[in-house]
Amino acid sequence: MPGPFTLGQIASRLGGRVAGDPQTLIRQVGSLERAGDGQITFFNSKKHQAKLGETRAAAVILAPENEQLTRLPRIVADNPYAYFARVSQLFNTAVTQALGVHSSAVVSPTVKLGKGVSIGAGCVVGDDVVIGDDSCLYPRVVLYAKSILGKRVVVHSGVVIGADGFGIASEDGRGEGPWIKIPQIGGVRIGDDVEIGANTTIDRGALDDTVIEEGVKLDNQIQIGHNCHIGAHSAIAGCAGIAGSTRIGAHCTIGGGAMIQGHITIVDHVHVSGGTAITRSILKPGTYTSLYPFDEHGAWKRSTARLRRLIRGKRDA
Amino acid sequence: MPGPFTLGQIASRLGGRVAGDPQTLIRQVGSLERAGDGQITFFNSKKHQAKLGETRAAAVILAPENEQLTRLPRIVADNPYAYFARVSQLFNTAVTQALGVHSSAVVSPTVKLGKGVSIGAGCVVGDDVVIGDDSCLYPRVVLYAKSILGKRVVVHSGVVIGADGFGIASEDGRGEGPWIKIPQIGGVRIGDDVEIGANTTIDRGALDDTVIEEGVKLDNQIQIGHNCHIGAHSAIAGCAGIAGSTRIGAHCTIGGGAMIQGHITIVDHVHVSGGTAITRSILKPGTYTSLYPFDEHGAWKRSTARLRRLIRGKRDA
Amino acid sequence: MPGPFTLGQIASRLGGRVAGDPQTLIRQVGSLERAGDGQITFFNSKKHQAKLGETRAAAVILAPENEQLTRLPRIVADNPYAYFARVSQLFNTAVTQALGVHSSAVVSPTVKLGKGVSIGAGCVVGDDVVIGDDSCLYPRVVLYAKSILGKRVVVHSGVVIGADGFGIASEDGRGEGPWIKIPQIGGVRIGDDVEIGANTTIDRGALDDTVIEEGVKLDNQIQIGHNCHIGAHSAIAGCAGIAGSTRIGAHCTIGGGAMIQGHITIVDHVHVSGGTAITRSILKPGTYTSLYPFDEHGAWKRSTARLRRLIRGKRDA
Repeated sequence: MPGPFTLGQIASRLGGRVAGDPQTLIRQVGSLERAGDGQITFFNSKKHQAKLGETRAAAVILAPENEQLTRLPRIVADNPYAYFARVSQLFNTAVTQALGVHSSAVVSPTVKLGKGVSIGAGCVVGDDVVIGDDSCLYPRVVLYAKSILGKRVVVHSGVVIGADGFGIASEDGRGEGPWIKIPQIGGVRIGDDVEIGANTTIDRGALDDTVIEEGVKLDNQIQIGHNCHIGAHSAIAGCAGIAGSTRIGAHCTIGGGAMIQGHITIVDHVHVSGGTAITRSILKPGTYTSLYPFDEHGAWKRSTARLRRLIRGKRDA
Repeated sequence: MPGPFTLGQIASRLGGRVAGDPQTLIRQVGSLERAGDGQITFFNSKKHQAKLGETRAAAVILAPENEQLTRLPRIVADNPYAYFARVSQLFNTAVTQALGVHSSAVVSPTVKLGKGVSIGAGCVVGDDVVIGDDSCLYPRVVLYAKSILGKRVVVHSGVVIGADGFGIASEDGRGEGPWIKIPQIGGVRIGDDVEIGANTTIDRGALDDTVIEEGVKLDNQIQIGHNCHIGAHSAIAGCAGIAGSTRIGAHCTIGGGAMIQGHITIVDHVHVSGGTAITRSILKPGTYTSLYPFDEHGAWKRSTARLRRLIRGKRDA
Repeated sequence: MPGPFTLGQIASRLGGRVAGDPQTLIRQVGSLERAGDGQITFFNSKKHQAKLGETRAAAVILAPENEQLTRLPRIVADNPYAYFARVSQLFNTAVTQALGVHSSAVVSPTVKLGKGVSIGAGCVVGDDVVIGDDSCLYPRVVLYAKSILGKRVVVHSGVVIGADGFGIASEDGRGEGPWIKIPQIGGVRIGDDVEIGANTTIDRGALDDTVIEEGVKLDNQIQIGHNCHIGAHSAIAGCAGIAGSTRIGAHCTIGGGAMIQGHITIVDHVHVSGGTAITRSILKPGTYTSLYPFDEHGAWKRSTARLRRLIRGKRDA
């Protein structure tokens, strides 16, 4: 673990302004509640002002407007959370796995590995896969044949990249089974600096490729269907599902458990709330929501019955 | 890779009528946008008419009513998408993994394997499992003891079949924990021609078996609870969850992210929209939906507040 | 497999009262529909009275008020389902995997294993992990470094514990990418008697630990975000997602597919219906629901249009 650094050393590396003793020695980051001796924390919201008063951290990162809320040694920065992220990266490596290919991994001889790659225990890497420099597969990742990963891609355990998309044709054309399988002959291309959470799945394309652009961050248990295209620097939270052939723009965020229909387009800078179902294209940046409000079960039941009557009554009228 | 075939050879194998040069040589399938020399594509919807005009494919599969929309060599078929699937199967194998048991797989000596089975790297196959002819487990599939798979079953990476169902009894009978585990002693039976997507889970039965009938197609990250029964040729899209002891009929389709409650019955030919929650039995074929429409967040917030007032006002009145 | 036992022996071990021949010999449990010779079943709901009349079970467990519904040998108990669970445990082991560490598992030399631990094929157990007595990891579980599991913890295949939480800071502070990763340096602590279903993921904490208290039961494909705290004896059904830093009390139940927002608090004895989205803290015990009722698709479409007009009309008025 690198460090320790003084507050002054941190500010000279990362910017920001020190208030209080610049010689304060920092060894690690910590939360407002639990940070102690030698630990620096951050303060981001007035909601936590009581915690700030009680923290035993050695120093705090906060915004200019909050500078006077504590007498602790501190670093004043415009974006305290981003600053905190940078400080944590000073003390902690983002990837915690040894370099090289673990002896239990099964890696095709036709794979092309960049420099500084780490492939964990039990990974399976198929034919003609390409993995860029400094990328890391944690244990038990599967990359089907021909998947292409950029540089500094981090893939967590249980992820499956390049499995067949859900491509089936109705035998009689009426949208019901029996089904004829459409061989999935596209690939998957993943850009630089993408991170993919545990047990997420990204299907190979049916004909063309599934594409995840650079800087995309995917949480756990996300499903990305075949031929999706996720734009640069978008972030998708856990349990979201993106159906096939949908195109999501750059700088979007998709909340946890959101379901995005297939064959639609979502432009750049769109934010979808958690639990929301998106059923048609979104062509205007903004935030979109579809939640039906929760309520105590009895009240919900009455409201729902009332709602039915309202709708029916009006229709009949 | 088999082929090439001429358009005439394809039509003589699969039916349909050739228009234009029957000697046109085809080596592979492709999308309207990217198919090129030696590739055949399909046209299925007038929405894509502009793309049809620009395609550089060597040939197109389309319906009789669209025959005159292009001068390219073409095959005219009543169900172009199904026809395309068949053509793609001519040029591409559906299963892309070598036959036999990979040396890193852990397979119980009591397993019964059919002919032509492929078991990928890192699979774990428990005691008394039966796998029918020509079935394929991609890397890192787990089959718990006594799971029974039919012929031509394809199981993608990360799938877990036969883990314990969620069988717990409330110690005090009030529906809260502490919980007593009910040993899950049923099995899982999977019919012929079933395909199961990456990271999907199918639990073993509590007492009797969980059953997936022939021809069922399951996408990725689906959860099938203990003692479910899924009828023949039904298809379930990604992230759907089917709670325990529910019976789904034949020829059904369940959309992505749909949640189906436990202990209910859904008859044949029912179609559930993506993102829909089904909370009671469905005894009539048809399509069912529960989506609350999404909206721009501010508009959604105002609508929802208004809705609450509407309901409350009417109730109080 | 232990046993057989007579009804009398069972009642003397587990309590309850025998009606009919106490010498009736029982070898196994079974369902009302399929139990046969030597099998005991249970009857819990008048809905199944017809099945009770037809059952070929050797004996039945039922409540005092139902005692007269059958002439079969029976055990009368106040909570027949919990009693049945205990009986099943007499005849069946809850864990079906051999003790010890499978030769294909990759276990760090710094791991601390309790007595009677079972680690299945293909598991990967990282540095400084602690696993308490009589715990079982089924095949292909990954425990990232420093995860701590109590006693009698059962973890099903495909589970990933301790992967990085979704901790990213917006570079420009506007809630959009590019993103800076926040190293996830907390751990995961899991209490005694917890069971975790297949392909469930529990992230390590960002700074402090993610905590699952004793007796918690998690079904398959659940996502638990970083720094969540799940109280003792709570049960969560399949496909539910709990976003980061949320605190769920003790004795709660969360239905399948429910989505719980991050950074909120849910008190003890709260029950969330399946498919429900919880978007703010719940401070009062009870049952909570947010489902928008499903309907036949055409009716749903008309209702939804009508609903929009109702809301809009009123707002404009």
